[in-house]
Amino acid sequence: MSTTMMIDPGLPTGQFTDVIASHGDYVDLVKFGWGTALVTRDLDRKTAVLREAGIGYYFGGTLFERYLWGGRLDDFLALVEGSGATHIEVSNGTIPLDQPTKAEYVRRLSAYRPVLSEVGYKDAERSAHLSPADWVGAIREDLDAGAELVITETRESGRSGMARPDGHVRDDVLRAVLAGTDPARLLFEAPTKDLQVELIKEIGPEVNLGNIAAADLVGVETLRRGLRGDTLLQLAPAGFPAAQPTVHKGAINA
Amino acid sequence: MSTTMMIDPGLPTGQFTDVIASHGDYVDLVKFGWGTALVTRDLDRKTAVLREAGIGYYFGGTLFERYLWGGRLDDFLALVEGSGATHIEVSNGTIPLDQPTKAEYVRRLSAYRPVLSEVGYKDAERSAHLSPADWVGAIREDLDAGAELVITETRESGRSGMARPDGHVRDDVLRAVLAGTDPARLLFEAPTKDLQVELIKEIGPEVNLGNIAAADLVGVETLRRGLRGDTLLQLAPAGFPAAQPTVHKGAINA
Amino acid sequence: MSTTMMIDPGLPTGQFTDVIASHGDYVDLVKFGWGTALVTRDLDRKTAVLREAGIGYYFGGTLFERYLWGGRLDDFLALVEGSGATHIEVSNGTIPLDQPTKAEYVRRLSAYRPVLSEVGYKDAERSAHLSPADWVGAIREDLDAGAELVITETRESGRSGMARPDGHVRDDVLRAVLAGTDPARLLFEAPTKDLQVELIKEIGPEVNLGNIAAADLVGVETLRRGLRGDTLLQLAPAGFPAAQPTVHKGAINA
Repeated sequence: MSTTMMIDPGLPTGQFTDVIASHGDYVDLVKFGWGTALVTRDLDRKTAVLREAGIGYYFGGTLFERYLWGGRLDDFLALVEGSGATHIEVSNGTIPLDQPTKAEYVRRLSAYRPVLSEVGYKDAERSAHLSPADWVGAIREDLDAGAELVITETRESGRSGMARPDGHVRDDVLRAVLAGTDPARLLFEAPTKDLQVELIKEIGPEVNLGNIAAADLVGVETLRRGLRGDTLLQLAPAGFPAAQPTVHKGAINA
Repeated sequence: MSTTMMIDPGLPTGQFTDVIASHGDYVDLVKFGWGTALVTRDLDRKTAVLREAGIGYYFGGTLFERYLWGGRLDDFLALVEGSGATHIEVSNGTIPLDQPTKAEYVRRLSAYRPVLSEVGYKDAERSAHLSPADWVGAIREDLDAGAELVITETRESGRSGMARPDGHVRDDVLRAVLAGTDPARLLFEAPTKDLQVELIKEIGPEVNLGNIAAADLVGVETLRRGLRGDTLLQLAPAGFPAAQPTVHKGAINA
Repeated sequence: MSTTMMIDPGLPTGQFTDVIASHGDYVDLVKFGWGTALVTRDLDRKTAVLREAGIGYYFGGTLFERYLWGGRLDDFLALVEGSGATHIEVSNGTIPLDQPTKAEYVRRLSAYRPVLSEVGYKDAERSAHLSPADWVGAIREDLDAGAELVITETRESGRSGMARPDGHVRDDVLRAVLAGTDPARLLFEAPTKDLQVELIKEIGPEVNLGNIAAADLVGVETLRRGLRGDTLLQLAPAGFPAAQPTVHKGAINA
């Protein structure tokens, strides 16, 4: 029941198709990162691949912000419509858009598509000034406004938003957020293995993870299943050493 | 009018073809990094793809240095000829070749192909000893010798040459260089997003950028157009909040 | 005579095929990293590509550990058999399995396939507690137990096992190991360029290297041949400046 969101930072079309053909089972949503959709020659071919595979897709929140910043939100909605995007991301990671106004856009745009709203800023310093209570308040406000999921911002470097400059999760924020919100309503951006491991250990293998690179889809799936060293002892069923394993001669090559 | 140079560090042929087919519009030059061309099975197929797309290509300066170091410069020129390379890079990043002698090679080799000369060393410590005046002097000398463009060295780590060990641009060098040289004659190696953002903000979206990975071509193009958070507020036309945007009910799904 | 082991962290099938078609000459062994094989849709197609190319393959030691931990080693051997894997890796990087017992598994499993055994832990702190004498003793014990090669653990970050947290080789360990063991019996995991360069400079271009990413296969081959700045002066034959090279007018475009 977990959601994995892959970010497409501008993959060439052949590689994109290859990734979905091989690993589409481990992807629930694809985000065309920031404004990449506008400089992607074959966006139609990519979206056709996703519709065929039954995978949702939408544009990064920065594209929403860019259109809003330019006073052209209607053009943005036309783009959503024309591309068949299944969701809309509403964020204020870059432009000066206060939280209540952002929540108002969550409410309005929910009339068009299920909305994923984002909390947190791309700028590490601005994000560091958000207190745990700020995070909790913003998440609640966005959910109340109708957001289907709330995304906790963590840039591709894994060192801002809900992550600390050293690349680890901000525990105080995470604890406060989990105290008041069902994790099934949250999508945690986790672009690095460190963050993926920490969130899976803390919240469980069903945690919703986003900003997963195409190259990490299989890796994340192995972490969820205890098939990698980082989570093996926590998540894999143990029959050892209680039942000391033996090798029966002839098990193979018999 | 900006130039983007992609580095090929040894992509498999299918991926290379896929990248050019999808993102060739954002590439002006391809450099077959260092000596990779000599261990590339399908160099002919790669160069055919580039000629078809109208993209120039050449060998990394290390290959020039390797042949020079071995006393086999004629063999290097035969390789240039045989491969149809459109440019020649002349550098002294690794071998002991002083600046005036390097400039002499710029002059001589310009008889064969337009020359891209490189200033700066691959070794971080040696590069750190180059003063701003050294950089300016070397760039001027190479341009006077006939170089079409001068490349400022920054290794793929983004932490040597014109970058500091912390991965940011050496401001003193950049300021001195820009004071005396038209940036259109310079190609800045910028293998990391930090460097790409700093150079675009400092010099403008038309800055010539090199050592761009295939995976970053779309990202760099979005930075140039203000389609990413890092440059959105600087480069995107603003209609907000002066003209507060509205959502007209029925813009989509009407 | 050197061995290069590529790690597959879950490449999509098309890319995997492309890599082997282009760069198969530089790969001797492929490791399906940790438990990725269990979540790979097209494992059969990948192994067919490798058999066709004459390249050996096996499962990461974590998969052996996972099955052992679950008390299902027979199932592991059935998987080895069914997949046609050419080798078995035996390790104790994650689960609590002491060195003598690990060596006993090396001995037993050598009856089924040539065994690659691994020394070192994935956890940086545990690995740091291994003294040079511990490394030497474990390597000797595994070789005595019949291991074809002993792998020195270095995770994909390049910052644990035989690497220090700063990403460089643990010199004391390396010196001790080389004093008592033929390097031809060792396979050094070297996932970063820093480690690749250090090992090639220290042991020579024939050093066996493992955990090489698909994207680095060509890069490693150029390092081995002195075709990259990092090893050019050490490994490339010099004819300069003793025999100052000249450019003969007309060498190309004649």
